[in-house]
Amino acid sequence: MVEWLAAGSAPVFNVCCALIVLEMAALAFATPLLRVKRNVWLNEEDAQRFSGTVADVEHRDVARVIRAHRNQLENFVPFFALGLLWIAGGTSSRVGDGLFVAFTLARIAHLVFYLARMGRLRTASHTVSFIVLLILAGGVAWRSIVGI
Amino acid sequence: MVEWLAAGSAPVFNVCCALIVLEMAALAFATPLLRVKRNVWLNEEDAQRFSGTVADVEHRDVARVIRAHRNQLENFVPFFALGLLWIAGGTSSRVGDGLFVAFTLARIAHLVFYLARMGRLRTASHTVSFIVLLILAGGVAWRSIVGI
Amino acid sequence: MVEWLAAGSAPVFNVCCALIVLEMAALAFATPLLRVKRNVWLNEEDAQRFSGTVADVEHRDVARVIRAHRNQLENFVPFFALGLLWIAGGTSSRVGDGLFVAFTLARIAHLVFYLARMGRLRTASHTVSFIVLLILAGGVAWRSIVGI
Repeated sequence: MVEWLAAGSAPVFNVCCALIVLEMAALAFATPLLRVKRNVWLNEEDAQRFSGTVADVEHRDVARVIRAHRNQLENFVPFFALGLLWIAGGTSSRVGDGLFVAFTLARIAHLVFYLARMGRLRTASHTVSFIVLLILAGGVAWRSIVGI
Repeated sequence: MVEWLAAGSAPVFNVCCALIVLEMAALAFATPLLRVKRNVWLNEEDAQRFSGTVADVEHRDVARVIRAHRNQLENFVPFFALGLLWIAGGTSSRVGDGLFVAFTLARIAHLVFYLARMGRLRTASHTVSFIVLLILAGGVAWRSIVGI
Repeated sequence: MVEWLAAGSAPVFNVCCALIVLEMAALAFATPLLRVKRNVWLNEEDAQRFSGTVADVEHRDVARVIRAHRNQLENFVPFFALGLLWIAGGTSSRVGDGLFVAFTLARIAHLVFYLARMGRLRTASHTVSFIVLLILAGGVAWRSIVGI
Protein backbone atom coordinates (compact mmCIF):
# COMPACT_ATOMS: atom_id res chain seq x y z
CA MET A 1 0.00 0.00 0.00
CA VAL A 2 2.98 2.28 0.55
CA GLU A 3 3.81 2.44 -3.14
CA TRP A 4 0.22 3.44 -3.86
CA LEU A 5 0.87 7.03 -2.86
CA ALA A 6 3.73 7.41 -5.31
CA ALA A 7 1.68 6.05 -8.22
CA GLY A 8 -0.89 7.94 -10.26
CA SER A 9 -2.90 10.89 -9.00
CA ALA A 10 -2.58 10.06 -5.31
CA PRO A 11 -0.41 13.05 -4.23
CA VAL A 12 -2.76 15.53 -5.91
CA PHE A 13 -5.79 13.72 -4.46
CA ASN A 14 -4.23 13.68 -0.99
CA VAL A 15 -3.50 17.40 -1.01
CA CYS A 16 -7.03 18.13 -2.33
CA CYS A 17 -8.56 16.05 0.48
CA ALA A 18 -6.39 17.74 3.12
CA LEU A 19 -7.40 21.18 1.79
CA ILE A 20 -11.13 20.41 1.88
CA VAL A 21 -10.81 18.95 5.38
CA LEU A 22 -9.02 22.11 6.55
CA GLU A 23 -11.81 24.18 4.97
CA MET A 24 -14.40 22.15 6.90
CA ALA A 25 -12.29 22.45 10.06
CA ALA A 26 -12.32 26.24 9.64
CA LEU A 27 -16.14 26.13 9.47
CA ALA A 28 -16.33 23.84 12.52
CA PHE A 29 -14.08 26.32 14.35
CA ALA A 30 -16.04 29.41 13.25
CA THR A 31 -19.48 28.06 14.23
CA PRO A 32 -19.13 28.21 18.06
CA LEU A 33 -17.26 31.55 17.86
CA LEU A 34 -20.16 33.06 15.90
CA ARG A 35 -22.62 31.48 18.34
CA VAL A 36 -20.85 33.22 21.23
CA LYS A 37 -21.17 36.55 19.37
CA ARG A 38 -24.88 36.12 18.57
CA ASN A 39 -25.41 34.44 21.97
CA VAL A 40 -28.33 32.24 20.86
CA TRP A 41 -27.99 28.58 21.91
CA LEU A 42 -29.75 25.29 21.27
CA ASN A 43 -28.19 23.61 24.32
CA GLU A 44 -29.51 24.90 27.63
CA GLU A 45 -26.13 24.26 29.33
CA ASP A 46 -24.40 26.54 26.79
CA ALA A 47 -26.96 29.33 27.19
CA GLN A 48 -26.35 29.14 30.95
CA ARG A 49 -22.57 29.13 30.56
CA PHE A 50 -22.59 32.27 28.36
CA SER A 51 -25.72 33.91 29.89
CA GLY A 52 -27.41 33.78 26.47
CA THR A 53 -30.79 32.90 24.98
CA VAL A 54 -32.11 29.37 24.38
CA ALA A 55 -33.85 28.81 21.03
CA ASP A 56 -35.12 25.86 18.98
CA VAL A 57 -33.64 27.23 15.74
CA GLU A 58 -30.07 28.56 15.26
CA HIS A 59 -29.50 32.30 14.79
CA ARG A 60 -29.77 33.05 11.06
CA ASP A 61 -26.05 33.87 10.71
CA VAL A 62 -24.99 30.69 12.50
CA ALA A 63 -27.46 28.67 10.42
CA ARG A 64 -25.76 29.96 7.25
CA VAL A 65 -22.35 28.72 8.39
CA ILE A 66 -23.87 25.36 9.34
CA ARG A 67 -25.54 25.06 5.91
CA ALA A 68 -22.23 25.87 4.21
CA HIS A 69 -20.56 23.20 6.35
CA ARG A 70 -23.25 20.62 5.59
CA ASN A 71 -22.91 21.35 1.88
CA GLN A 72 -19.13 20.82 2.06
CA LEU A 73 -19.62 17.54 3.91
CA GLU A 74 -22.27 16.13 1.58
CA ASN A 75 -19.99 16.91 -1.37
CA PHE A 76 -16.73 15.77 0.21
CA VAL A 77 -18.10 12.32 1.10
CA PRO A 78 -18.84 11.24 -2.51
CA PHE A 79 -15.68 13.01 -3.70
CA PHE A 80 -13.47 11.07 -1.32
CA ALA A 81 -15.23 7.75 -1.97
CA LEU A 82 -15.22 8.02 -5.76
CA GLY A 83 -11.77 9.63 -5.95
CA LEU A 84 -10.29 6.76 -3.97
CA LEU A 85 -12.05 4.13 -6.07
CA TRP A 86 -11.02 5.98 -9.24
CA ILE A 87 -7.36 5.82 -8.18
CA ALA A 88 -7.66 2.25 -6.87
CA GLY A 89 -9.19 1.20 -10.19
CA GLY A 90 -6.19 2.55 -12.09
CA THR A 91 -8.34 4.95 -14.12
CA SER A 92 -6.44 7.71 -15.98
CA SER A 93 -4.46 9.73 -13.45
CA ARG A 94 -4.11 12.76 -15.74
CA VAL A 95 -7.89 13.11 -16.04
CA GLY A 96 -8.18 12.29 -12.34
CA ASP A 97 -5.75 15.05 -11.36
CA GLY A 98 -7.69 17.60 -13.41
CA LEU A 99 -11.00 16.53 -11.90
CA PHE A 100 -9.65 16.60 -8.32
CA VAL A 101 -8.22 20.11 -8.73
CA ALA A 102 -11.38 21.42 -10.45
CA PHE A 103 -13.53 20.00 -7.65
CA THR A 104 -11.38 21.50 -4.91
CA LEU A 105 -11.27 24.96 -6.50
CA ALA A 106 -15.05 24.86 -7.06
CA ARG A 107 -15.59 23.88 -3.41
CA ILE A 108 -13.41 26.70 -2.07
CA ALA A 109 -15.21 29.13 -4.39
CA HIS A 110 -18.56 27.78 -3.17
CA LEU A 111 -17.67 28.56 0.43
CA VAL A 112 -16.50 32.09 -0.41
CA PHE A 113 -19.64 32.82 -2.43
CA TYR A 114 -21.88 31.31 0.25
CA LEU A 115 -20.45 33.48 3.02
CA ALA A 116 -20.34 36.54 0.70
CA ARG A 117 -24.06 35.98 -0.10
CA MET A 118 -23.46 35.84 -3.86
CA GLY A 119 -26.23 33.45 -4.93
CA ARG A 120 -25.59 33.10 -8.67
CA LEU A 121 -21.86 32.44 -8.34
CA ARG A 122 -22.57 30.03 -5.49
CA THR A 123 -24.89 28.06 -7.79
CA ALA A 124 -22.29 28.16 -10.60
CA SER A 125 -19.50 26.79 -8.39
CA HIS A 126 -21.84 24.10 -7.05
CA THR A 127 -22.61 23.06 -10.62
CA VAL A 128 -18.90 22.57 -11.39
CA SER A 129 -18.32 20.31 -8.38
CA PHE A 130 -21.58 18.46 -9.12
CA ILE A 131 -20.49 17.67 -12.70
CA VAL A 132 -17.12 16.42 -11.43
CA LEU A 133 -18.94 13.99 -9.09
CA LEU A 134 -21.08 12.70 -11.97
CA ILE A 135 -17.96 12.09 -14.11
CA LEU A 136 -16.23 10.31 -11.22
CA ALA A 137 -19.30 8.13 -10.56
CA GLY A 138 -19.59 7.26 -14.25
CA GLY A 139 -15.87 6.50 -14.52
CA VAL A 140 -15.78 4.27 -11.44
CA ALA A 141 -18.93 2.34 -12.43
CA TRP A 142 -17.85 1.97 -16.09
CA ARG A 143 -14.39 0.76 -15.13
CA SER A 144 -15.81 -1.78 -12.67
CA ILE A 145 -18.41 -3.14 -15.07
CA VAL A 146 -15.97 -3.40 -17.98
CA GLY A 147 -13.43 -4.85 -15.55
CA ILE A 148 -15.76 -7.71 -14.60
CA MET B 1 -3.30 -0.93 -5.80
CA VAL B 2 -4.39 -1.47 -9.39
CA GLU B 3 -4.82 -5.19 -8.89
CA TRP B 4 -7.05 -4.47 -5.91
CA LEU B 5 -10.04 -3.75 -8.14
CA ALA B 6 -9.78 -7.09 -9.86
CA ALA B 7 -9.64 -9.02 -6.60
CA GLY B 8 -12.55 -9.90 -4.36
CA SER B 9 -15.76 -7.94 -4.10
CA ALA B 10 -14.33 -4.65 -5.31
CA PRO B 11 -16.25 -4.36 -8.60
CA VAL B 12 -19.58 -4.99 -6.88
CA PHE B 13 -18.64 -2.58 -4.09
CA ASN B 14 -17.60 0.08 -6.61
CA VAL B 15 -20.85 -0.13 -8.55
CA CYS B 16 -22.85 -0.03 -5.29
CA CYS B 17 -20.98 3.10 -4.17
CA ALA B 18 -21.47 4.78 -7.55
CA LEU B 19 -25.21 4.01 -7.42
CA ILE B 20 -25.68 5.44 -3.93
CA VAL B 21 -23.67 8.54 -4.89
CA LEU B 22 -25.89 9.03 -7.95
CA GLU B 23 -28.95 8.64 -5.72
CA MET B 24 -27.61 11.34 -3.39
CA ALA B 25 -26.73 13.50 -6.41
CA ALA B 26 -30.35 13.22 -7.57
CA LEU B 27 -31.49 14.47 -4.15
CA ALA B 28 -28.95 17.31 -4.22
CA PHE B 29 -30.28 18.23 -7.66
CA ALA B 30 -33.96 18.01 -6.66
CA THR B 31 -33.65 20.15 -3.51
CA PRO B 32 -33.11 23.58 -5.16
CA LEU B 33 -35.67 22.78 -7.90
CA LEU B 34 -38.28 22.08 -5.24
CA ARG B 35 -37.24 25.23 -3.36
CA VAL B 36 -37.88 27.28 -6.51
CA LYS B 37 -41.36 25.75 -6.75
CA ARG B 38 -42.26 26.35 -3.09
CA ASN B 39 -40.36 29.69 -3.20
CA VAL B 40 -39.39 29.68 0.50
CA TRP B 41 -35.70 30.44 1.13
CA LEU B 42 -33.29 30.43 4.04
CA ASN B 43 -30.75 32.64 2.23
CA GLU B 44 -31.90 36.26 1.80
CA GLU B 45 -29.99 36.58 -1.49
CA ASP B 46 -31.93 33.62 -2.95
CA ALA B 47 -35.29 35.00 -1.82
CA GLN B 48 -34.38 38.26 -3.56
CA ARG B 49 -33.22 36.50 -6.73
CA PHE B 50 -36.48 34.54 -7.05
CA SER B 51 -38.79 37.12 -5.42
CA GLY B 52 -39.71 34.56 -2.76
CA THR B 53 -40.19 34.42 1.01
CA VAL B 54 -37.40 34.28 3.62
CA ALA B 55 -37.91 31.80 6.46
CA ASP B 56 -35.86 30.30 9.29
CA VAL B 57 -37.15 26.78 8.62
CA GLU B 58 -37.33 25.05 5.22
CA HIS B 59 -40.72 24.46 3.56
CA ARG B 60 -42.04 21.13 4.80
CA ASP B 61 -41.70 19.44 1.37
CA VAL B 62 -38.12 20.63 0.96
CA ALA B 63 -37.30 19.59 4.53
CA ARG B 64 -38.46 16.03 3.67
CA VAL B 65 -36.03 15.81 0.74
CA ILE B 66 -33.23 17.18 2.91
CA ARG B 67 -34.00 14.62 5.64
CA ALA B 68 -33.97 11.82 3.07
CA HIS B 69 -30.61 13.14 1.80
CA ARG B 70 -29.14 13.38 5.31
CA ASN B 71 -30.29 9.83 6.02
CA GLN B 72 -28.56 8.58 2.86
CA LEU B 73 -25.36 10.40 3.79
CA GLU B 74 -25.23 9.20 7.38
CA ASN B 75 -25.68 5.63 6.14
CA PHE B 76 -23.35 5.85 3.15
CA VAL B 77 -20.41 7.11 5.24
CA PRO B 78 -20.17 4.02 7.49
CA PHE B 79 -21.02 1.77 4.53
CA PHE B 80 -18.13 3.14 2.47
CA ALA B 81 -15.68 3.11 5.38
CA LEU B 82 -16.50 -0.41 6.58
CA GLY B 83 -16.95 -1.81 3.06
CA LEU B 84 -13.49 -0.60 2.09
CA LEU B 85 -11.91 -1.97 5.28
CA TRP B 86 -13.80 -5.25 4.82
CA ILE B 87 -12.31 -5.63 1.32
CA ALA B 88 -8.87 -4.37 2.40
CA GLY B 89 -8.86 -6.93 5.21
CA GLY B 90 -9.47 -9.75 2.79
CA THR B 91 -12.70 -10.78 4.50
CA SER B 92 -14.97 -13.14 2.51
CA SER B 93 -15.83 -11.48 -0.78
CA ARG B 94 -18.88 -13.69 -1.37
CA VAL B 95 -20.46 -12.56 1.90
CA GLY B 96 -19.26 -9.02 1.17
CA ASP B 97 -20.91 -8.96 -2.26
CA GLY B 98 -24.21 -10.08 -0.76
CA LEU B 99 -24.05 -7.48 2.00
CA PHE B 100 -23.15 -4.67 -0.41
CA VAL B 101 -26.03 -5.50 -2.75
CA ALA B 102 -28.53 -5.89 0.13
CA PHE B 103 -27.46 -2.53 1.54
CA THR B 104 -27.77 -0.74 -1.79
CA LEU B 105 -31.22 -2.18 -2.55
CA ALA B 106 -32.41 -1.30 0.97
CA ARG B 107 -31.10 2.26 0.55
CA ILE B 108 -32.86 2.75 -2.80
CA ALA B 109 -36.05 1.32 -1.30
CA HIS B 110 -35.68 3.67 1.69
CA LEU B 111 -35.58 6.70 -0.59
CA VAL B 112 -38.63 5.57 -2.56
CA PHE B 113 -40.62 4.86 0.62
CA TYR B 114 -39.51 8.15 2.19
CA LEU B 115 -40.69 10.23 -0.76
CA ALA B 116 -43.85 8.12 -1.13
CA ARG B 117 -44.63 8.73 2.56
CA MET B 118 -44.87 5.03 3.38
CA GLY B 119 -43.67 5.01 6.99
CA ARG B 120 -43.70 1.31 7.85
CA LEU B 121 -41.86 0.20 4.70
CA ARG B 122 -39.38 3.06 5.20
CA THR B 123 -38.63 1.72 8.69
CA ALA B 124 -38.32 -1.83 7.34
CA SER B 125 -35.82 -0.84 4.63
CA HIS B 126 -33.86 1.19 7.16
CA THR B 127 -33.66 -1.86 9.41
CA VAL B 128 -32.14 -3.94 6.61
CA SER B 129 -29.37 -1.43 5.86
CA PHE B 130 -28.81 -0.95 9.60
CA ILE B 131 -28.25 -4.68 10.14
CA VAL B 132 -25.81 -4.78 7.21
CA LEU B 133 -23.77 -2.00 8.86
CA LEU B 134 -23.67 -3.91 12.16
CA ILE B 135 -22.44 -7.05 10.38
CA LEU B 136 -19.78 -5.06 8.50
CA ALA B 137 -18.61 -3.36 11.73
CA GLY B 138 -18.44 -6.70 13.53
CA GLY B 139 -16.59 -8.34 10.66
CA VAL B 140 -14.01 -5.57 10.32
CA ALA B 141 -13.35 -5.36 14.06
CA TRP B 142 -13.22 -9.15 14.49
CA ARG B 143 -10.85 -9.59 11.57
CA SER B 144 -8.54 -6.84 12.89
CA ILE B 145 -8.47 -8.12 16.46
CA VAL B 146 -7.88 -11.72 15.40
CA GLY B 147 -5.31 -10.43 12.89
CA ILE B 148 -3.27 -8.75 15.63
CA MET C 1 -4.41 -5.10 -0.66
CA VAL C 2 -4.78 -8.06 1.71
CA GLU C 3 -1.34 -7.52 3.23
CA TRP C 4 -2.24 -3.90 3.90
CA LEU C 5 -4.23 -4.84 6.99
CA ALA C 6 -1.32 -6.63 8.56
CA ALA C 7 1.07 -3.72 8.03
CA GLY C 8 1.34 -0.58 10.11
CA SER C 9 -1.49 0.96 12.07
CA ALA C 10 -4.30 -0.62 10.08
CA PRO C 11 -5.68 -2.98 12.79
CA VAL C 12 -5.88 -0.14 15.33
CA PHE C 13 -7.42 2.15 12.71
CA ASN C 14 -9.96 -0.51 11.73
CA VAL C 15 -11.08 -1.11 15.30
CA CYS C 16 -11.32 2.67 15.90
CA CYS C 17 -13.50 3.08 12.78
CA ALA C 18 -15.72 0.16 13.78
CA LEU C 19 -16.17 1.65 17.27
CA ILE C 20 -17.14 5.10 15.98
CA VAL C 21 -19.55 3.54 13.47
CA LEU C 22 -21.17 1.53 16.28
CA GLU C 23 -21.45 4.72 18.34
CA MET C 24 -23.20 6.44 15.42
CA ALA C 25 -25.39 3.38 14.93
CA ALA C 26 -26.46 3.63 18.58
CA LEU C 27 -27.47 7.25 17.98
CA ALA C 28 -29.33 6.32 14.78
CA PHE C 29 -31.14 3.64 16.79
CA ALA C 30 -31.95 5.92 19.75
CA THR C 31 -33.39 8.77 17.65
CA PRO C 32 -36.67 7.12 16.54
CA LEU C 33 -37.14 5.51 19.98
CA LEU C 34 -36.91 8.92 21.61
CA ARG C 35 -39.25 10.36 18.94
CA VAL C 36 -41.83 7.72 19.85
CA LYS C 37 -41.54 8.75 23.53
CA ARG C 38 -41.84 12.50 22.85
CA ASN C 39 -44.38 11.76 20.06
CA VAL C 40 -43.52 14.83 17.96
CA TRP C 41 -42.96 14.07 14.25
CA LEU C 42 -41.75 15.87 11.16
CA ASN C 43 -43.29 13.30 8.80
CA GLU C 44 -47.10 13.40 8.67
CA GLU C 45 -47.28 9.64 8.01
CA ASP C 46 -45.34 8.95 11.24
CA ALA C 47 -47.54 11.27 13.30
CA GLN C 48 -50.56 9.38 11.95
CA ARG C 49 -49.00 5.98 12.63
CA PHE C 50 -48.26 6.84 16.27
CA SER C 51 -51.18 9.29 16.82
CA GLY C 52 -48.68 12.05 17.61
CA THR C 53 -48.15 15.70 16.80
CA VAL C 54 -46.73 17.08 13.54
CA ALA C 55 -44.15 19.87 13.90
CA ASP C 56 -41.66 21.70 11.66
CA VAL C 57 -38.88 21.46 14.26
CA GLU C 58 -37.84 18.34 16.20
CA HIS C 59 -38.61 18.05 19.90
CA ARG C 60 -35.71 19.61 21.83
CA ASP C 61 -34.54 16.28 23.27
CA VAL C 62 -34.58 14.58 19.86
CA ALA C 63 -32.80 17.58 18.32
CA ARG C 64 -29.98 17.12 20.85
CA VAL C 65 -29.43 13.50 19.82
CA ILE C 66 -29.51 14.53 16.13
CA ARG C 67 -26.94 17.28 16.78
CA ALA C 68 -24.69 14.81 18.61
CA HIS C 69 -25.05 12.42 15.66
CA ARG C 70 -24.28 15.15 13.10
CA ASN C 71 -21.22 16.14 15.09
CA GLN C 72 -19.97 12.55 15.10
CA LEU C 73 -20.53 12.26 11.36
CA GLU C 74 -18.81 15.53 10.44
CA ASN C 75 -15.81 14.45 12.51
CA PHE C 76 -15.72 10.82 11.41
CA VAL C 77 -15.65 11.71 7.69
CA PRO C 78 -12.34 13.64 7.80
CA PHE C 79 -10.95 11.13 10.32
CA PHE C 80 -11.61 8.18 8.04
CA ALA C 81 -10.38 9.99 4.91
CA LEU C 82 -7.16 11.31 6.45
CA GLY C 83 -6.51 8.19 8.52
CA LEU C 84 -6.70 6.04 5.41
CA LEU C 85 -4.44 8.39 3.41
CA TRP C 86 -2.04 8.56 6.38
CA ILE C 87 -1.74 4.77 6.42
CA ALA C 88 -1.65 4.51 2.62
CA GLY C 89 1.16 7.07 2.53
CA GLY C 90 3.26 4.98 4.86
CA THR C 91 3.44 7.73 7.48
CA SER C 92 4.64 6.68 10.94
CA SER C 93 2.32 3.98 12.26
CA ARG C 94 3.34 4.51 15.89
CA VAL C 95 2.26 8.17 15.76
CA GLY C 96 -0.78 7.12 13.70
CA ASP C 97 -1.88 4.56 16.30
CA GLY C 98 -1.65 7.14 19.07
CA LEU C 99 -3.64 9.70 17.07
CA PHE C 100 -6.34 7.19 16.12
CA VAL C 101 -6.84 6.07 19.74
CA ALA C 102 -6.81 9.67 21.06
CA PHE C 103 -9.42 10.67 18.47
CA THR C 104 -11.69 7.71 19.25
CA LEU C 105 -11.55 8.25 23.03
CA ALA C 106 -12.22 11.98 22.56
CA ARG C 107 -15.22 11.19 20.33
CA ILE C 108 -16.73 8.74 22.81
CA ALA C 109 -16.17 11.29 25.60
CA HIS C 110 -17.82 13.98 23.44
CA LEU C 111 -20.96 11.90 23.07
CA VAL C 112 -21.15 11.16 26.79
CA PHE C 113 -20.66 14.84 27.71
CA TYR C 114 -23.17 15.96 25.04
CA LEU C 115 -25.91 13.70 26.34
CA ALA C 116 -24.99 14.48 29.98
CA ARG C 117 -25.27 18.22 29.19
CA MET C 118 -21.74 18.98 30.43
CA GLY C 119 -20.81 21.89 28.15
CA ARG C 120 -17.20 22.60 29.18
CA LEU C 121 -16.06 18.97 29.03
CA ARG C 122 -17.89 18.59 25.69
CA THR C 123 -15.88 21.53 24.31
CA ALA C 124 -12.64 20.08 25.75
CA SER C 125 -13.18 16.66 24.15
CA HIS C 126 -14.10 18.33 20.86
CA THR C 127 -10.83 20.27 20.98
CA VAL C 128 -8.82 17.06 21.34
CA SER C 129 -10.41 15.41 18.29
CA PHE C 130 -10.12 18.68 16.36
CA ILE C 131 -6.36 18.89 16.99
CA VAL C 132 -5.92 15.25 15.90
CA LEU C 133 -7.65 16.10 12.58
CA LEU C 134 -5.33 19.08 12.03
CA ILE C 135 -2.26 16.90 12.66
CA LEU C 136 -3.56 14.21 10.29
CA ALA C 137 -4.29 16.82 7.58
CA GLY C 138 -0.85 18.36 7.98
CA GLY C 139 0.85 14.97 7.93
CA VAL C 140 -0.99 13.75 4.82
CA ALA C 141 -0.41 16.99 2.89
CA TRP C 142 3.26 17.26 3.95
CA ARG C 143 4.00 13.66 3.03
CA SER C 144 2.33 14.08 -0.40
CA ILE C 145 4.09 17.34 -1.22
CA VAL C 146 7.50 16.06 -0.11
CA GLY C 147 6.74 12.81 -1.93
CA ILE C 148 6.24 14.62 -5.24
